[in-house]
Amino acid sequence: MKLLPLFGATLALLCSTSAAADVLIDNVKGVRIDEDGEVDRFTGLWVDDDGTILEVLDKGDKRPEHPKYLSDMDGQIIVPGMIDAHLHVMGIGFGALTLDLSETNSLEEALALIAQFARENPGRPWILGRGWNQEKWGLGRFPTAEELDRAVSDRPVFLERVDGHAGWANTLAIETAKIDADTKDPVGGRIERDAAGAPAGVFVDAATDLVQKVVPEPRPVDRDAALQEAQQILLAQGITAVADMGTTLLDWQTYRRAGDRDQLRIRIMSYAAGIEAMEVIGGTGPTPWLYQDRLRLNGVKLYLDGALGSRGAWLKQPYADDPQNTGLPLLSDTQLRNLMSRAAMENYQIAVHAIGDAANAEALAAIEELSESYRGDRRWRIEHAQIVDPLDIERFGEYGIIASVQPVHQTSDRVMAEARLGPDRLLGAYAWASLAKSGARLALGSDAPVESANPFVGMAVAMTRMDADGLPLGGWMPDERLSRMEAWRGFTSDAAFAGFAEGRFGRLVKGERADFVVVDRDISRASPEAIRQTQVIETWVGGVRAYRRGQ
Amino acid sequence: MKLLPLFGATLALLCSTSAAADVLIDNVKGVRIDEDGEVDRFTGLWVDDDGTILEVLDKGDKRPEHPKYLSDMDGQIIVPGMIDAHLHVMGIGFGALTLDLSETNSLEEALALIAQFARENPGRPWILGRGWNQEKWGLGRFPTAEELDRAVSDRPVFLERVDGHAGWANTLAIETAKIDADTKDPVGGRIERDAAGAPAGVFVDAATDLVQKVVPEPRPVDRDAALQEAQQILLAQGITAVADMGTTLLDWQTYRRAGDRDQLRIRIMSYAAGIEAMEVIGGTGPTPWLYQDRLRLNGVKLYLDGALGSRGAWLKQPYADDPQNTGLPLLSDTQLRNLMSRAAMENYQIAVHAIGDAANAEALAAIEELSESYRGDRRWRIEHAQIVDPLDIERFGEYGIIASVQPVHQTSDRVMAEARLGPDRLLGAYAWASLAKSGARLALGSDAPVESANPFVGMAVAMTRMDADGLPLGGWMPDERLSRMEAWRGFTSDAAFAGFAEGRFGRLVKGERADFVVVDRDISRASPEAIRQTQVIETWVGGVRAYRRGQ
Repeated sequence: MKLLPLFGATLALLCSTSAAADVLIDNVKGVRIDEDGEVDRFTGLWVDDDGTILEVLDKGDKRPEHPKYLSDMDGQIIVPGMIDAHLHVMGIGFGALTLDLSETNSLEEALALIAQFARENPGRPWILGRGWNQEKWGLGRFPTAEELDRAVSDRPVFLERVDGHAGWANTLAIETAKIDADTKDPVGGRIERDAAGAPAGVFVDAATDLVQKVVPEPRPVDRDAALQEAQQILLAQGITAVADMGTTLLDWQTYRRAGDRDQLRIRIMSYAAGIEAMEVIGGTGPTPWLYQDRLRLNGVKLYLDGALGSRGAWLKQPYADDPQNTGLPLLSDTQLRNLMSRAAMENYQIAVHAIGDAANAEALAAIEELSESYRGDRRWRIEHAQIVDPLDIERFGEYGIIASVQPVHQTSDRVMAEARLGPDRLLGAYAWASLAKSGARLALGSDAPVESANPFVGMAVAMTRMDADGLPLGGWMPDERLSRMEAWRGFTSDAAFAGFAEGRFGRLVKGERADFVVVDRDISRASPEAIRQTQVIETWVGGVRAYRRGQ
Repeated sequence: MKLLPLFGATLALLCSTSAAADVLIDNVKGVRIDEDGEVDRFTGLWVDDDGTILEVLDKGDKRPEHPKYLSDMDGQIIVPGMIDAHLHVMGIGFGALTLDLSETNSLEEALALIAQFARENPGRPWILGRGWNQEKWGLGRFPTAEELDRAVSDRPVFLERVDGHAGWANTLAIETAKIDADTKDPVGGRIERDAAGAPAGVFVDAATDLVQKVVPEPRPVDRDAALQEAQQILLAQGITAVADMGTTLLDWQTYRRAGDRDQLRIRIMSYAAGIEAMEVIGGTGPTPWLYQDRLRLNGVKLYLDGALGSRGAWLKQPYADDPQNTGLPLLSDTQLRNLMSRAAMENYQIAVHAIGDAANAEALAAIEELSESYRGDRRWRIEHAQIVDPLDIERFGEYGIIASVQPVHQTSDRVMAEARLGPDRLLGAYAWASLAKSGARLALGSDAPVESANPFVGMAVAMTRMDADGLPLGGWMPDERLSRMEAWRGFTSDAAFAGFAEGRFGRLVKGERADFVVVDRDISRASPEAIRQTQVIETWVGGVRAYRRGQ
């Protein structure tokens, strides 16, 4: 690719911001979804100084005569930038900066990795990490603090289990947290103990807070580093925009610091972590689009229930593998409606996390009620919409609700979900095609860092409901597969629409931002298996290259 | 004044942002300090779309032929926008929205006003206010909770003293805060007590937090209202830019919400309320100038001591009227140096509050030490620099320190300061001319809402050291008066320099922002008494009218 500055100085003299052609990105094999929703091919993009597309050019179209910059793309394939409708930006960044034990296959392997990480990071006062799984190690029991001391004993260590529901501490961390045999198990948590009743090293659920509360908070400079890391990871996957689900005030400050210094490279549609964060960020309503459409507080994320794996999802009937338990709502019906009203009153968008069928029914009921008072284009979102009573699916379409689903969860959860739900309730589980048929708009995402953010894997799963090994053959409940166009739109224009960003980005059309990805294959034609393997070569945001493979 | 749109549409078609003349402000009697520091007269300003001055025009100068807008100012006098180098933006706004006791002349008058305010504001869960001064009331002691109960006993009441260094609570507020005879004085604070040791009603310095912590926090929407109120008050006084001394993260969010929505009308040079706020706002250094030079985090404000009125100022020798007391440093020498290093390391500007002569000596010593490690253009600021040992004054000039002083404090404090200090220490009190002579640059401010923000009163006091009644005749310690030009620069270009804003605003010169005030008299010629009475007719910020009297 060549960058040729042409006439820049002269034009700048004539007009401080020129309406004339500024960037010509030419000689591409462009593939896009056009204004009519059809696959369309093009060969060039003519982009203004703000990164907005002035014209999408085909072979015979006249090129601007004097662009300031000309990028000859050597006939490479470009597709619209991918958008992830549900992930956690800072979680991705912090995850990348902490020790990852998820690939370890034994306790000894894990201990070696922990010791190495501690040696390589001498400046860190605590060693933090995640991803261990004693089942995968074949240990048959939890690991202990003493074992962890063998790897690191001179600094506190605290490592989160793969599911986030337990933490493993070394002796110094336990001492720092002042936990001993006299410390009682907190409500909703359990301290693993040795024969003498002393803490053994692992803390389960609410007991993790006993250690977590003495872990130093990341400093602003750590947060800045995490954001840069997250952006790099996302751009490398071809992602140009995301919905950040659960932005805290400190997260927001991190985005602002980057935005103020022209270091915000991806676009972030932000959903505040609760009503207080929403109000302190947005005041009396969503923020304007900031930094040339790179940041906006759209609304608020509310948690109505937990997750299926830990049996925190709120079900209408008990868990098939835990007949006394239906899970729990995290908000009463009054609380949910009050919080939703406070947001809707100020025209914030509302995204309700609902995984179980009871949670989805309750979210639907609340939306139905609020829709009477809060009219207009609300774009109510239900995040995950994972287990829905088949009788409730119609209701998504009736209220124009956005079902924000994460295809890869379906393949990761399959065996677990079958155990939790039994056969009867699977009909409304991950029921993407049924949701789409009801009239709901599907916005697709990854929930990264819970899953990898790779959107091409997400597209392939949406189209096949098969995992990386091609299992189950033909797809799990294949009637619920999405079409190629549904999957592609779900990761581009529909994800943008779900964040009120249509007309700004999400499509390669005149007037939207020139966000695109240089890839090694044509995803409008490739098989799902091939789409899954898509390699990202470059990622461009607003007409500027933000990522190049190998750099 | 007429606004004539001329050729706007045509120009906009040619160039989206035109370098051609955009606004011509003409037919003014302009008075300014020019590039050489001399008084200069002019008749027009030619301003671009960003509010920056393209040319300062005199009578014979050629005007642009086709300005988009022409403002004929009908021969009115305009002077540079006034800059206040030390005030509290949100305090001004909240002050305007809460009970103001600063005009009360007796305890009984205050109690009547408090009772009336409570009646007029039945919806407020707490009655909050400020401005009381037992000295002004001639009370000879602090007021009590029981006295306050006579005005309001059914809701908690908490009222800040005029200097912000003490608070007066009623019985319900004290009970709500769970303070009783067993409550110990916190470090750096004092609970006034009755004969039995029970809290008497007034809480000094750090002890105010005991009550403050139970006062409900204002909501973001309250903060937004307070900012709008503050801006209106400042613009009405002819102030176009300020240094905000002690910006919290929530204050900053308020400024951002306004900036994002084009509602930031004044320019704010922000100094964070401590190191944590500084880091979470700025990250690894001052923010860039935001919103076309309307907001920047410059650095941090650190409190080294309290105030003279409440005997919290840290003196080298005991108070003349309290021989056991020298006041207290709020930071140890190590703490001060650590905090200053953390800020200086990241190139933040440092503003140290120092009122007593011991505090000033300590601030000077710390600056001297840090100057060895942190070189370059640091513009160390000492806020107030109120009581300085005459032997220490030279040290201001040696290190190019900015003395950020508030002239009106001198007239308000005169009698009190004489009592606190006795005659011997007055030589270095409010010693503006001596500080200037040392080579320090004086930045002038008001400390509003502690004092009125009126900068013309400030200028007059700086020039006369006489109060509104012309007392004492000839001025208090008149050798310390400032010249007209020193006072004027102190409230304009020197206040800008003190915030690294030179070249951006503070002067009406080519390349700086067109911030000016339409006034009813020529302050380059008027007597100090006349300057004091200056009426502001209009205030313009960045070439746009932001205030007009009577609107």
